[in-house]
Parts: sequence; structure tokens; C-alpha cells
Amino acid sequence: MNKEKMIHLVDTTLRDGSHAVSHEYTVEQISAIAGGLDAAGVEYIEVSHGDGLAGSSFNYGWSLTREEDMLIAAAKAIKKGKLTVLLLPGIGTVENLEHAARCGAKAVRVATHVTEADIAEQHIGIAKKLGLKTFGFLMMSHMAPPEKVLEQAKLFESYGADIIYVADSAGAMLPEDVKVRVGAVVDAVKVPVGFHAHNNLSLATANSLAALEAGASFLDGTCRGLGAGAGNTQIEVLTGVLDKAGYQTGVDFYKIMDVAEEVVEPIMHRPQVVRNAPLMLGYAGVYSSFLLHTYRAAEKFRLDPRDILVELGRRRMVGGQEDMIVDVAYQLAQKKGGSHEGR
Amino acid sequence: MNKEKMIHLVDTTLRDGSHAVSHEYTVEQISAIAGGLDAAGVEYIEVSHGDGLAGSSFNYGWSLTREEDMLIAAAKAIKKGKLTVLLLPGIGTVENLEHAARCGAKAVRVATHVTEADIAEQHIGIAKKLGLKTFGFLMMSHMAPPEKVLEQAKLFESYGADIIYVADSAGAMLPEDVKVRVGAVVDAVKVPVGFHAHNNLSLATANSLAALEAGASFLDGTCRGLGAGAGNTQIEVLTGVLDKAGYQTGVDFYKIMDVAEEVVEPIMHRPQVVRNAPLMLGYAGVYSSFLLHTYRAAEKFRLDPRDILVELGRRRMVGGQEDMIVDVAYQLAQKKGGSHEGR
Repeated sequence: MNKEKMIHLVDTTLRDGSHAVSHEYTVEQISAIAGGLDAAGVEYIEVSHGDGLAGSSFNYGWSLTREEDMLIAAAKAIKKGKLTVLLLPGIGTVENLEHAARCGAKAVRVATHVTEADIAEQHIGIAKKLGLKTFGFLMMSHMAPPEKVLEQAKLFESYGADIIYVADSAGAMLPEDVKVRVGAVVDAVKVPVGFHAHNNLSLATANSLAALEAGASFLDGTCRGLGAGAGNTQIEVLTGVLDKAGYQTGVDFYKIMDVAEEVVEPIMHRPQVVRNAPLMLGYAGVYSSFLLHTYRAAEKFRLDPRDILVELGRRRMVGGQEDMIVDVAYQLAQKKGGSHEGR
Repeated sequence: MNKEKMIHLVDTTLRDGSHAVSHEYTVEQISAIAGGLDAAGVEYIEVSHGDGLAGSSFNYGWSLTREEDMLIAAAKAIKKGKLTVLLLPGIGTVENLEHAARCGAKAVRVATHVTEADIAEQHIGIAKKLGLKTFGFLMMSHMAPPEKVLEQAKLFESYGADIIYVADSAGAMLPEDVKVRVGAVVDAVKVPVGFHAHNNLSLATANSLAALEAGASFLDGTCRGLGAGAGNTQIEVLTGVLDKAGYQTGVDFYKIMDVAEEVVEPIMHRPQVVRNAPLMLGYAGVYSSFLLHTYRAAEKFRLDPRDILVELGRRRMVGGQEDMIVDVAYQLAQKKGGSHEGR
């Protein structure tokens, strides 16, 4: 752990945080938040629909503000930092990325499931040609063992990514899980490594510290921890903790606290606490998109939905396999000899 | 770290959590919460005014329910666990403790400032004579170096305490701070060691894990993290995290989640989040009783109250020294050459 080195902070209040306000940021709110973060010294300010460029849709939820207006407002408000966008190949396209660059984006995070880095090769290549700082972002990293995570990280590096992120998208990792995965990637690639945490197990801040101990130098967060479910790492708290632990971030602790309390808190739809549903997602290590299907299956087979979630996590089921939840519930019910429905 | 050993959980929703509901628990709520925790398998269930036995007063806030009614209701609801009370020598007396034992208390935590264990000798002696499981509880442990904490722990042990607690009352510790203090006490005493966390830096859960790694075997928490300011360790999350990390607690994860969401959450006055004021208390490592005096002094000398808090923490000022806050503010203002008031 080298505390002399600079820790780079990425604020994703206006991207991942957007899930928690139903993607309803106004242009004025985007300006105020992006401008406040920039004045506080945040280096990367991520602005996109919660599911990335072109995420605004029937499937993922419509944004209140058009993507172009969002990016232009943020670009105007940011003087020193880098306007950053997220791209999920399959949702966003190369055209969306080129458009974002024209609107002022200086960095992009190309995100894939932890085992699917190969679908990002073209997007990373184009991002580099556009002159963008390019991050490869491995989602749901808890689902793969360290050797798989590092293999995928090396793929990203071979495509030209400038920074590789390990993301604990379900907030399912313990500090030790973070250390082994981040440490494996740090040892395997030459580029800097980052970590993106979620707070489902109340460990987002501690896991961020664990990532630094394992050699990471980029960390994510959101004001007040804004984000789906239990939310993300609370960036103003993280800033204070890093300062207290002796790390340098270049972010003004008081200023970012003020952005959180005066600008972001008043527009939140609900407090960012760990209720039982996100706690169970983190405990089981499963996608939030499984919840609704799980509740339905639990009712049908008279099961505790928590038992289904734990079983889905045990089987390492991934997004897109939602239709199999009923099968899993049926098998659980059979095993318990409880329900006769569904036979 | 020996994961085979049993971790003992102490729930303090009905004591430390009481601060966050202005000590307004009703008899029905006390029965429901104590009964729920007991059914979930929690071993120690702490019930007292937030400031301990006899805390109900003009100075510390009146309890809605009389102490006797509180204890009798809890004792009736608890079948397997131990009804536990807190005693702060100077607020509660030996008579209060004897009364609590008659009402059904089976355990007592005798709490002092981290440097004042010697004021607890008589109380610990009487507690042992009453047949109570007796904890020595060192508050604000971040203010003393490990060698001082272990010296005070040994005093408690010499008086007969069955368990020694290191308490991070201001939520000011980083995991490393916890490890060195808890580790020092574990090495110095023969009795089991516990850790009480606060969440001002979003590290309560992680610090609890760090305490176990350093050899502790008792941990505190409250449902939904209920407590003053940023609150305590969220006990249902802690239960899940300990389970996931391979520790045994004897607590049913689903049942304690249900108590938190169905019984405790509906009676909370506000969500338990990390707003700026508790964040600053944890960052600076100072008492919450300093806040009001600090805001007044900041206004008088046109200072940022946060600068005053940081200075108070740097000087390791303790409770009772509130009148010196104006002096500290005056000196800060002089140094900044800002204000001419107060001369």
C-alpha cells in the first residue's frame, strides 16, 4: 500500500445514482451537481442514463432529460474534471459514443459482465481513436474467481483500455473478496486498476479501502450513496475516510460534503439505507432484476423468497436467466415437500 | 482469527438506539422488540435509557416509559437471552443496579470514559455479587493509544469484569485503529473482548470484522443501525456478513431481518443515514455534545464549524470541556485574522 500515490475519484451520482431517482434528473440539477463536483475537485464526473448511453428506453426506464441535453449541460458545468460516460455494449452503440464525444465527453467506461470482456473490443478501439480516456469495467466481479477476473482484465488491456475496473455490482463482496480480485488484476496488468462498490452489506467504504490496500488507485462513489437498492459508496464519506487514512485525492472534503447535503439530498426520492431486499441481494450475490420474479415464484410455491435468492446465488445465475427462477423455486419446493402447486 | 469460536451478539436497539427515538419507546414496543430479538436467538438484549440506568432526566432526556416498566416488560418477553442493562457511574447508582437485577436483569455493562476505568470498581464488585454477567465498557477508545486502552482494560479485569469492551463511541476509528486497540486488549487480558462500533465513517460493519480478526468475540449492533447521529452497527446486516464470512452467531438471519423491518423500522423517527454533522464528528473524533456549542462559536467568530470540530479533536477535548470551545474558536479566528468580534 503506497499512500503517496494519488487516488483518483470517479463520481457516478449522475449515472449509477440515476437509478435511485428513476432517471428523472433535470438539466438544472445536472448542471448544479456536475458543477459542484467539479468545483470540489472530482476528477471524473460520470453522466449517463443508469444503464449507460442510450439506456433511456421502455426496458430500462425513460430519462426525463434527453441524453444530448444531459451531456451538454454537464460539459458546460465542468471546468477542470473530465465528463465521463458509461457504455454497455448491446445497449449503447459506437454511434452513441461518437455523439457523446461530440457533446464533450472526455472519458468512457465500457462495461461488460465479468466473463464477457470480449464483446467490448470494438468499442474500446473506437473510444481510443476518439481520444477518450478509456476504462474497461468488469461488472458482477464477485461471480468469477480471481483467475477469471484477471484473464478478462488482460483482454481489456490488450484492446487498449487505459484503466481496468473491478465492479462489485451486487454489493456481494467481503473485504477479503475484494483484495484477492483487485490484487490479482493489479499483478496481471500494467495499467491502473479501479474498484466500484455497492453498499448492500454495509461494506462499500471498507471494500474501497481494501481495494487500495490491494493496489487499486481509482475508486467510485456517489453523493449520499445515491444508487439502486442499498446504493453506492458514499463519496463524501469516502473522501473523509481517505483523508483520515492518509491518502491524497485532490478533492475538497468540505466542498463535496456541501454538494451532497445541499444539492443532492434535497432531490433524493428516498433515504439510502440498507433495507432487507438489497441486503438479501448482497448476501446471495444476485441481480436486482431477479427480485420481482423471485417474489412471484415464492408466492406460487409458498416459499420464503430469501431461500430462492440464496439458491440462485449458489447456482451463479446471471441476467437473462430470469425464466429459470420458476424452475429453481419448483425444485426447492419439491425438496421441502411443501407445495403441490406447479406439478 | 478463529472462525470456529462463537461470536456473541449484543443488541442495543432498546438502549443506544433509544437516543434516536428520543427515549420514547412504549411498553408494547419494548415487548415486541425484545421478544423478537430473543426469538431470533440474540444472546444479550440491552434495555435502558440511552445514557443508562437512571438516565431519564432533564439533562439527558426523559424516557416515555418508566425504567421499572421497561425492564419488567423486556424481562417478560425474553425467554432464552439475557436482559442486559447499561450503567454509567455518576448517572446510575448501585441502588439502580440492584433494582434492575430485581426486575430481571442478568447482565450489566459498566461504562466509563476510556481513561477512567477506576471509577467503576465498586459498581463492578456489586454487579458480580448480584450474580450478573458483568462487562467493563471503555467509551471513546479512539482517544487513547493502545497501551492506555489495555491498561484500563486490565483495571476492569482486576475488578472482576467478565468481558471487556472497546467502544468507538464517536465512530472515529478506521479498521486499523480497531485492530491495534482490540488486539492490545486481547493480548493483555484473559477474559473475552468485545467491540462496539458507530457508523459515522460508514465503517461500523467493517470495524466489527476487524475486531474479530484481532481476537474479539463479542459485538454490538442495533436493528436498522438505530442510534444517535449516524447510528450503530446494523445488526441484521452484521448477522448476514458474519454468516457469509463463516462465523457462528446462533442468530437466525431471516428472523432478525424481520424484526428490523417489521418491528423497528415503523417506529423510527428518521432514516439512519450518514449526514454531514455525524460524518464530521467521526472525522474529527469528538463528542456529539460539542455540536451545538460549536455552531454557536462558529457563528460568533465567522468560522466554518467544521474547522472548530477538527481542532477540538486534535486537542483531544473530552466531555465536560464544552466551555472551552469558545476559546478554541477565538484562537482559530485570531490565527485566520478573520474576525474582530470576541476581543
